[in-house]
Amino acid sequence: MTSVNTTEAELEPAGAPDTGVEAQVHALADRSRTAARRLARANRAWKDRALRQIAQNVNAKQAAILEANARDVAAGRDNGTSTAMLDRLSLTPARITALAAALENLAGLPDPVGSVARGQTLPNGLRLRQVHVPMGVVAAIYEARPNVTLDIAGLALKSGNAVLLRGGSAAANTNAVLVEIIRDSLEEAGLPADAVQSVDQYGREGANVLMKARGRVDVLIPRGGRSLIQSVVTNATVPVIETGEGNVHIYLDHSAPVEMAVDILLNAKTQRPSVCNTVETLLIHEGAPAAGDVLAALAAAGVRLHADPRAMELLPAGVSAEAADDGDWGREYMDLDLAVAVVDTLDDALEHIRRWTTGHTEAIITNDLANAERFIAEIDSAAVIVNASTRFTDGGELGLGAEVGISTQKMHARGPMGLRELTTTKWIIQGDGQIRD
Amino acid sequence: MTSVNTTEAELEPAGAPDTGVEAQVHALADRSRTAARRLARANRAWKDRALRQIAQNVNAKQAAILEANARDVAAGRDNGTSTAMLDRLSLTPARITALAAALENLAGLPDPVGSVARGQTLPNGLRLRQVHVPMGVVAAIYEARPNVTLDIAGLALKSGNAVLLRGGSAAANTNAVLVEIIRDSLEEAGLPADAVQSVDQYGREGANVLMKARGRVDVLIPRGGRSLIQSVVTNATVPVIETGEGNVHIYLDHSAPVEMAVDILLNAKTQRPSVCNTVETLLIHEGAPAAGDVLAALAAAGVRLHADPRAMELLPAGVSAEAADDGDWGREYMDLDLAVAVVDTLDDALEHIRRWTTGHTEAIITNDLANAERFIAEIDSAAVIVNASTRFTDGGELGLGAEVGISTQKMHARGPMGLRELTTTKWIIQGDGQIRD
Repeated sequence: MTSVNTTEAELEPAGAPDTGVEAQVHALADRSRTAARRLARANRAWKDRALRQIAQNVNAKQAAILEANARDVAAGRDNGTSTAMLDRLSLTPARITALAAALENLAGLPDPVGSVARGQTLPNGLRLRQVHVPMGVVAAIYEARPNVTLDIAGLALKSGNAVLLRGGSAAANTNAVLVEIIRDSLEEAGLPADAVQSVDQYGREGANVLMKARGRVDVLIPRGGRSLIQSVVTNATVPVIETGEGNVHIYLDHSAPVEMAVDILLNAKTQRPSVCNTVETLLIHEGAPAAGDVLAALAAAGVRLHADPRAMELLPAGVSAEAADDGDWGREYMDLDLAVAVVDTLDDALEHIRRWTTGHTEAIITNDLANAERFIAEIDSAAVIVNASTRFTDGGELGLGAEVGISTQKMHARGPMGLRELTTTKWIIQGDGQIRD
Repeated sequence: MTSVNTTEAELEPAGAPDTGVEAQVHALADRSRTAARRLARANRAWKDRALRQIAQNVNAKQAAILEANARDVAAGRDNGTSTAMLDRLSLTPARITALAAALENLAGLPDPVGSVARGQTLPNGLRLRQVHVPMGVVAAIYEARPNVTLDIAGLALKSGNAVLLRGGSAAANTNAVLVEIIRDSLEEAGLPADAVQSVDQYGREGANVLMKARGRVDVLIPRGGRSLIQSVVTNATVPVIETGEGNVHIYLDHSAPVEMAVDILLNAKTQRPSVCNTVETLLIHEGAPAAGDVLAALAAAGVRLHADPRAMELLPAGVSAEAADDGDWGREYMDLDLAVAVVDTLDDALEHIRRWTTGHTEAIITNDLANAERFIAEIDSAAVIVNASTRFTDGGELGLGAEVGISTQKMHARGPMGLRELTTTKWIIQGDGQIRD
């Protein structure tokens, strides 16, 4: 097999009647399916060899990656792209080394494929096993963050899936170089290059075709901001795993120990404000002794407070806040901002959370057992935390190995998704002539 | 709480600006959400008491159910409904007793809610559990089969979910009586009547609103034929679990023992031809010694064979067949019909199956270990069977207790779905002040 760059026109199968984008993306997806079949049978040693090969080649070709990335960043700057977006788009030698190291790390993790979920011998002698197998063809639609290209390709490969990538067009040059490196590495490792393909050359229309490719795409993972995810979820007819949005709440109970409350709030808000498991709203139980110290510590750490009228009254001397409105309760700041409200009861806190949560993570700080148990039972979010930082809703922290994303939906995967969540299961039933009565 | 029949106009919340179907169905869904919260906290004893109450009342009100059903059946007959559809629509005293018994049986099964999927104590002392919890609000869209009303309501209740039902309009009278019995029984058992609601009064438009009710409906289960399922899958923006279609294959290997092959084919085709796990295509390995006996036995059992030219040549004396075409390979007969083709190799069989399968169940009959293992590894269907009838792809047969349906998709649930598949999970993280470094 020779290396075929997916930007070449020859991808179109000879004699295809429709030369439109749909036919071309479908042809790519069919090649993914063929590659997926080989990948599903590749044992862990083959897949890990390929992951290490990609890591090695990414390090070796740092200069080419940086050159392509510099072109994307320059174009972005010319287009007036925001500093935050340019930062996510930019690669540095240190970032590239870290991405390669993450692939090496992935190679060290157990293979989710082949693990037996359940099994038994039935009364009639049938041997039954439910075994984890790859999904098949995974598609990913994401924003202009070239790290996602390596990340998703690695996770898909490790879990035995072929992947179709649609990255943000602002990262097109970087992604093209990365995909070429990945495909060359796959071939060097004896696996089909078509296990990783890009549809970037088809632009927005390519993404639309992926979203509707029922039967060709087994699962679609959008990664990015709210509008990207909502657009995918609304338009896709293939199964989607919704990830990411986190309007995270902490409820500060009357019984919360002061020092613990200060430590947890500071960590949950300031340790990495731009990620989805950072706290966005603090709900203070009326009269909670920890309130003053918590607000003072947050303000001292540079957190901008957005307070409701009752929270305004709790502000310590020298601490100011903006007036909060409904826009604040529903907002994922992803920055050093925090909405603060005072509630009379745990019920009021639960009601506020039910109204505004995105179902990602909520935490309670308390020393009251009954309140902790009610919070655990009644919060309907992917993660419910008692007396710890919300930053723990993370695949790595929870021991899941590598993280595909944080699912905020209820089907298939909820919360941090590890490699296992990129697999499905197959029932294997073995007999010696059993029939049904 | 007084019993409120969902057909009453008062369902519309006071002052709602939109009196259209969407607002009314959303109002019902919001009542389902409130009921779901109470149900999620109901322990098994409460739920089982309600299930037994429903069973008791269904038996006690047999006359009213039969009377309503007779009106539906008469209307169907007047409209020229097919005999098969009338049969599925019709209830008899025996069928009603069986439905009540199924609810009693459900009450005897373990509660999926609260079971711990995984858990550990992390190095930093955090106690981590992944616990099964109800989905919340389940919607079901199904055809004019009133048994599904009791079936889905019982499964949803046992798994702690509220359910919104949309049955076929041809069963509207029967379903209205059944839903009223269920709601009265829930109240008698101390659970909210709104745990089970019908949107039948809103017709097709009600179904459309359900399909788009993101955030209000957690999962939608279509039950019925191909066109219903395809319509739901294509139009829904809420998560869907696709069930049902089974274009099931059996591959008869050269090494297949003759008697075993005859027994399995007869069972897989004739034991209950109208269900999704019945075999629809037989692929015969060229020269397989069992072929003649198998075809003779099937013909003697009244099976109409649809054969390709090479299979025609294998027909024993006195056995005839129609010529098969692509329409046969893709067809789910659900009747005493079987497509038959001869293939040169296992690879050709795998290729045929890949082209035509719906991903439900495929089986191999063989005494060749290598062929069995290749078949298991390379078939990408919910169930792969070696040397047993395809009729075993069934929740009851596989020991899953009650069956919600057979999922033919890869996300969340694949193959027979039990009560567990009507739950999601929640991560519960308990600490004593842990923060992230």
